[in-house]
Amino acid sequence: MASAATGVPVREPLVADGVLRFLDVGDVRLESGFTLPDVTLGFETWGTLNSAGSNAVLIEHALTADSHVATGTSRDSATGWWDGLVGPGKAIDPSRWFIVAANMIGGCYGSTGPGSTAADGRPWGSRFPEVSIRDSVVAETRLADLLGVSRWHAVVGGSMGAMRALEWSVLEPSRVGHVVVLASSAYSTAEQIGWAQAQLLAIRQDPSFQGGDYYQTGRTPDAGLGLARRIAHITYRCESELSARFGNEAQQPPRSDAPSRFQVESYLDHQAGKLVARFDANSYIALTQALMGHDVRRGRGTLREALGSTEAQATVIAVDSDRLYPAALSAELAAAWADPVDVHTIRSAAGHDGFLLETDQLGAILGGSVFA
Amino acid sequence: MASAATGVPVREPLVADGVLRFLDVGDVRLESGFTLPDVTLGFETWGTLNSAGSNAVLIEHALTADSHVATGTSRDSATGWWDGLVGPGKAIDPSRWFIVAANMIGGCYGSTGPGSTAADGRPWGSRFPEVSIRDSVVAETRLADLLGVSRWHAVVGGSMGAMRALEWSVLEPSRVGHVVVLASSAYSTAEQIGWAQAQLLAIRQDPSFQGGDYYQTGRTPDAGLGLARRIAHITYRCESELSARFGNEAQQPPRSDAPSRFQVESYLDHQAGKLVARFDANSYIALTQALMGHDVRRGRGTLREALGSTEAQATVIAVDSDRLYPAALSAELAAAWADPVDVHTIRSAAGHDGFLLETDQLGAILGGSVFA
Repeated sequence: MASAATGVPVREPLVADGVLRFLDVGDVRLESGFTLPDVTLGFETWGTLNSAGSNAVLIEHALTADSHVATGTSRDSATGWWDGLVGPGKAIDPSRWFIVAANMIGGCYGSTGPGSTAADGRPWGSRFPEVSIRDSVVAETRLADLLGVSRWHAVVGGSMGAMRALEWSVLEPSRVGHVVVLASSAYSTAEQIGWAQAQLLAIRQDPSFQGGDYYQTGRTPDAGLGLARRIAHITYRCESELSARFGNEAQQPPRSDAPSRFQVESYLDHQAGKLVARFDANSYIALTQALMGHDVRRGRGTLREALGSTEAQATVIAVDSDRLYPAALSAELAAAWADPVDVHTIRSAAGHDGFLLETDQLGAILGGSVFA
Repeated sequence: MASAATGVPVREPLVADGVLRFLDVGDVRLESGFTLPDVTLGFETWGTLNSAGSNAVLIEHALTADSHVATGTSRDSATGWWDGLVGPGKAIDPSRWFIVAANMIGGCYGSTGPGSTAADGRPWGSRFPEVSIRDSVVAETRLADLLGVSRWHAVVGGSMGAMRALEWSVLEPSRVGHVVVLASSAYSTAEQIGWAQAQLLAIRQDPSFQGGDYYQTGRTPDAGLGLARRIAHITYRCESELSARFGNEAQQPPRSDAPSRFQVESYLDHQAGKLVARFDANSYIALTQALMGHDVRRGRGTLREALGSTEAQATVIAVDSDRLYPAALSAELAAAWADPVDVHTIRSAAGHDGFLLETDQLGAILGGSVFA
């Protein structure tokens, strides 16, 4: 795209809301020391930046989500993953706010990742470097520059998106007015790392993975990625919800010559199949590794010291049934903020995924504060 | 063994305590309708059955444990997995009780399983039938007959062992005086089934699994079994304990050319390696499927109706930090007992594995009641 090549701020001409676009943000020196050349970010916007530049909102997606936060204005625009919170008449309304969402480095939705073409004309594959939460934020600062956003009214994210929001507030304290940290934590815990390791192994142990260089071989590690998703999906929900929905009902009457099948197995198969159809296994690994390495304290002392430079007003929100990011992690973060804040709690039967589902409660919290 | 061939009660000569022995318990018609021929049970005993036959105790092992509940009396006997509860001076003392433990059908510790030789001289492998909790109990009733035990003073189990204890009290109400159900449930929940499915897939997707017929091929699905164990192990512990032990400390400083390694990953690798060295993947599948199918209600109406025939005095014990068998499942079982009983709660930082670790608390509960 012309704008990508020239790097000129792209405020005109207006394109439809919720359409994936691309910008070249240049070389990015990664936390690891590796320089990732010619980084492209895939991103979408909704609404218009006002002349004061005071209405910009950055919404950060979670692990396997993307920049399509809300349904766009073109006729065939797909449903957004946060339509209950972002859209006309919602808490974050494009008629009032200029909303931006970018895809993470390492992902497979238009930003540079393992499936992108490297300088030698071949896909990065196994050669793709380890990328961190902070690396994506650095790339997003370039995107903000190119979009003409000098300061975000708010940076909002749930789960892994909240990790980037948090890093924004630390890396660029003068550019973030509010930070909304939802269903997340200041650092990854041992248990989260353990679950992540199991998911990485599930993919790497699939023979079709071929060490990560499966592009153009005609085989992809679908079975491994599907298993990774099953593991993850259980951690995203909670026991009581799964019991209420599926119990231990058999999918079909057990026969003596076939193993029993349970309804919850069919459900998890379905979740696995959906992800495999839309996500790249190498990207799953790259982003999961970024998740494992999340720690806002790294190189910055204690949590309180790490947060000491932030100027953003924090809104910390936990989901009561979340066992992957238990509410205690939100409490720890909120208490360590330079000016300690309360934790809002949203009620959900669904566990961690409540951050995606309980948009009415989220809207009530955010509509009455950050976006009042 | 001679005793196995003749099926005569084996009360003399005395062998050392805690030594693995074998008995042929004949053909077992399984719940599925399949008849498993010539079933052998591997078992161990401690102490001596008294002349009144009133001091027999059956201890049921969990998923990957075995009949070696306690250290034996021979000089080189290995440490037992419940030495804190069973042994000289402990709550269940072999000087007073005749203690029996048998290995499950489908396992790999001496009872007939997928690695056993079928009638055609080849290992059962993929042909091994689906076996249930109840099937193992039926085989154990034969073992009790052969050992001359007409009635157990108590049948005691934790986790999957408690499922067999519970089925004993329902299938053979007149033969069970006390039943101790520890860290378990009346039926498997959707979440437990979901975790089990992930573990089965981890094994089956390992190319060395070869559909289950890997014996004599020179390859075994170690990677898949190791992944299954990692998943299981996280569910056996709890978030706070893993955080306290490992946090998100790196195993080694991250380098730009190598992925980060965390201490908890090394710990889980170690747990995986230990299991792979001692357990058969097909047995892991067979027993996990039995676990998935656990439901004391199956074919018996409501939970209260299913338990209506029991005559045993129940002792139900939950571990406060157990998220795999949450205390609510113990409460549900206890409340449905013919004569409802209270739930004892043991405190543990370790999650589900508290049932193996907190032997002092267990001993205090059981020593003051069932084994007073």
